Amino acid sequence: MKVIADICVVPIGVGVSLGSYIAVCEKILIDAGLQLHLHGYGTNVEGEWDQVMRAFKDCHEALHDMGVPRISSTIRLGTRTDREQTIEDKIRSVEEKL
Amino acid sequence: MKVIADICVVPIGVGVSLGSYIAVCEKILIDAGLQLHLHGYGTNVEGEWDQVMRAFKDCHEALHDMGVPRISSTIRLGTRTDREQTIEDKIRSVEEKL
Amino acid sequence: MKVIADICVVPIGVGVSLGSYIAVCEKILIDAGLQLHLHGYGTNVEGEWDQVMRAFKDCHEALHDMGVPRISSTIRLGTRTDREQTIEDKIRSVEEKL
Amino acid sequence: MKVIADICVVPIGVGVSLGSYIAVCEKILIDAGLQLHLHGYGTNVEGEWDQVMRAFKDCHEALHDMGVPRISSTIRLGTRTDREQTIEDKIRSVEEKL
Repeated sequence: MKVIADICVVPIGVGVSLGSYIAVCEKILIDAGLQLHLHGYGTNVEGEWDQVMRAFKDCHEALHDMGVPRISSTIRLGTRTDREQTIEDKIRSVEEKL
Repeated sequence: MKVIADICVVPIGVGVSLGSYIAVCEKILIDAGLQLHLHGYGTNVEGEWDQVMRAFKDCHEALHDMGVPRISSTIRLGTRTDREQTIEDKIRSVEEKL
Repeated sequence: MKVIADICVVPIGVGVSLGSYIAVCEKILIDAGLQLHLHGYGTNVEGEWDQVMRAFKDCHEALHDMGVPRISSTIRLGTRTDREQTIEDKIRSVEEKL
Repeated sequence: MKVIADICVVPIGVGVSLGSYIAVCEKILIDAGLQLHLHGYGTNVEGEWDQVMRAFKDCHEALHDMGVPRISSTIRLGTRTDREQTIEDKIRSVEEKL
């Protein structure tokens, strides 16, 4: 099952500057071989369900290993059986109607 | 790694009455042996990360098997290493301060 | 326009114990005269769109006034024109199918 | 109060092809004079709180006026008092650490 997900990881208890923690997560998602698109409030990820979820779990584990005591993440996940669709397809399907 | 999650599954392409689909997901989460709390915009779930994520994937697969062509879900997930905490603990930590 | 919302406010930069901040938000939502249901990962709120959004903004402003330097919130919001529905209706429409 | 938000609007009860509805929302956000970044699972928006929330409400109202009977949206919202930050700043703060 393919999934398009949007992941936003919020480390808690390590102050207000979170960019270096988010960068660690980005590297994990890239190393997992996922199609990625970083935006201003999360990251679009495209891949097989288990592959995406494995990488997402790795992010939580890596941040805790770095000393982050608490993490609150949010994910949006879309699956569909009617047709194949990529992140690029989704963006194009909106932009061509603007 | 323990997780407290809040899951909201939105079936798309099957009209506006979604209660019967959500009930299927509730049964899957219950059968997975998870601590649950159904509320008005999702379900709190408490358990081991892999157990929660396995059950969540089962929800998507079950709905697609029922003929739902598209699903858009959102999850909030919290993990922490500083101490053990249950859904009940989280609610109590707010209510005792009201 | 009526809305059923689920609000989760995450204060950042004030350590890992967030219950007292969430309690401040609960009081603001209660004082706004909204129907509420606190759960383990947010709060269900029911009311007129502007009333809900006004109270939600008041939460952000009150926490910043208390010294919280950064806040990351997530909301789910549902509106519908086909029929009136309350938080209780939504829960019942699932539970009666279990 | 400035806010950076990420908005994802999901029309329900109008089938599985949602691009044309999302395009209507994009136009509303653009016409509101907001800084925007459309991605594969939502749209980043930057502006004054009331301006962002007004435009978001306009999206719900416009879709209902087009005949969408039910809408389920999710928003992430960030506010901070420690410093000014744009969507571009947030992305750069991660990318420079990759």
